[in-house]
Amino acid sequence: MEISIGIDIGGTNSPFGIVNSEGEVLANGSVKTRDFNHPEDFAAAISLLIKDNLKSLGSDLKLLGIGIGAPNGNHFQGTIEFAPNLPWNGVINLVVLFQQHFEAPIFVTNDANAATIGEFVFGKAKGLKDFMVVTLGTGVGSGFVSNGELIYGHDSFAGELGHTIIVHDGRDCACGRRGCLETYASVTGLMRTTQIMLAKSSQDSMLREVSSDELSGKHVSDAAAKGDALAVSILDYTAKRLAFSLANAVAITSPEAIFLFGGMARAGDLLLGPTKKYFEEYLLYLYKDKVRIEISALTEQNAAVLGAAALVWKEFQAK
Amino acid sequence: MEISIGIDIGGTNSPFGIVNSEGEVLANGSVKTRDFNHPEDFAAAISLLIKDNLKSLGSDLKLLGIGIGAPNGNHFQGTIEFAPNLPWNGVINLVVLFQQHFEAPIFVTNDANAATIGEFVFGKAKGLKDFMVVTLGTGVGSGFVSNGELIYGHDSFAGELGHTIIVHDGRDCACGRRGCLETYASVTGLMRTTQIMLAKSSQDSMLREVSSDELSGKHVSDAAAKGDALAVSILDYTAKRLAFSLANAVAITSPEAIFLFGGMARAGDLLLGPTKKYFEEYLLYLYKDKVRIEISALTEQNAAVLGAAALVWKEFQAK
Repeated sequence: MEISIGIDIGGTNSPFGIVNSEGEVLANGSVKTRDFNHPEDFAAAISLLIKDNLKSLGSDLKLLGIGIGAPNGNHFQGTIEFAPNLPWNGVINLVVLFQQHFEAPIFVTNDANAATIGEFVFGKAKGLKDFMVVTLGTGVGSGFVSNGELIYGHDSFAGELGHTIIVHDGRDCACGRRGCLETYASVTGLMRTTQIMLAKSSQDSMLREVSSDELSGKHVSDAAAKGDALAVSILDYTAKRLAFSLANAVAITSPEAIFLFGGMARAGDLLLGPTKKYFEEYLLYLYKDKVRIEISALTEQNAAVLGAAALVWKEFQAK
Repeated sequence: MEISIGIDIGGTNSPFGIVNSEGEVLANGSVKTRDFNHPEDFAAAISLLIKDNLKSLGSDLKLLGIGIGAPNGNHFQGTIEFAPNLPWNGVINLVVLFQQHFEAPIFVTNDANAATIGEFVFGKAKGLKDFMVVTLGTGVGSGFVSNGELIYGHDSFAGELGHTIIVHDGRDCACGRRGCLETYASVTGLMRTTQIMLAKSSQDSMLREVSSDELSGKHVSDAAAKGDALAVSILDYTAKRLAFSLANAVAITSPEAIFLFGGMARAGDLLLGPTKKYFEEYLLYLYKDKVRIEISALTEQNAAVLGAAALVWKEFQAK
């Protein structure tokens, strides 16, 4: 059986999976990223664990390749470049590191692009040529597919929708600028909106019963689901900002569909409903009623690993 | 000699050119679009004129195809769809109309995409895989090339950078919405900025010597070239709006270069200088000092025709 390996290098954990062509995870595991001061040691340790898993799966496996999703992953160079959340500094050549442990080809991309390829190969975007994926987690990432190919751009850093500025002189962003989509539409952004709305409004809300430290996105969506008016307006505000950005992006790549993924997407229709409404309002007439917005088919639990593994399948499909 | 024909259908004039593989216009002509109440008659008339030109060029010509640039041109359907500036309503199938007069393949796209392909085949974008062209004329159009292919989107209507909203509740746009880039960065937008600044400021300016009806973009750039402070600040404001939009677009497709074209580009360094400055300020750190902005190599006079002709060359290159 042909298989590929997907590795998702994250700031805390780095899970991996051994995946077949149907997107089934045959075996999986994880290492703690911060246990390793040097990326060489990290690569050695996770490779050892992967090989052990491969062994226990039996001998008739053909490893086609290894896909790695990582923050600031550079597809063209096979490197991670100055990733702020990782314990390792500077430029790390993942291809070179993993070639010491595996003979199969190694492909690298950033996490949002991996999620996009995952949707493309195993999810709802199968067969589409023009779509986008927006990951709404701690940050906001995105991947754009046009003409059936992921847009990497000339430097492999395309698809940073989270860092398009949507409000002039808006909220401070971790990138050093202000008003990025990420400061409104990420889970962190949702919490900022919640704090502001709680402070500005004198409305009763069950969100007031939770301490600031404890307050999470789930509290907001749970409260909204129970009809808490303030929680509803927090999601409405977030949806409006997100919809604005999506409508502007549509004017550039005109996708057939947009797939939302990540922590915020868990709010489901509570977020999707108002997002669709504002999206249609913001769209240029040419695009109205043409672009569907859906929640991703991939589960958060394995999307990153599946997406990384899908990188390999995509490369072999293309040939 | 292999040749292609480029036709640029415009609201007033529809010029055409017979173009060789080097981008040389061997013969050209034009018909007045509004002389024809029916698109069939227009197609018959311009075809007659083109055939006459072909005849006078001699007999050793091999016509590879006909490229047509038109407002709201749909590449996939070969149609013009509800173009507001043309005398013909609804959906017009250009391929069917021109097939009655020529046996060569016929390709349709919108005018900004034609300019983009023109830059790609005959201009400064030769050999690039990721770039964008922004046309700054009466309106603002754009074309994006990623992975060496023009982004048409699923419906052929991608690349409407002019209708991304850059100011919430900003200036009224002809599209029915508010705050589109086009209302700031087109020649029309520049004139709106000029009127507003003349009204708001009490600064002396040579622009005050020109009547509102006469005032043109050339007045503004000429005054700025002579050091007129108000004119300089008008171009500065325009550049800032344009730069904001370009920086946001870069975060989506990460191009290697941006080429500016059209009436506004005539202001040259007076516009380009401040645009580059604000652009670098607005860019996410990942993209800083990586993306060049240049004035297009194509002249306004023949860019539309060359771009339309280039459509044909591009199709044959791709095969």
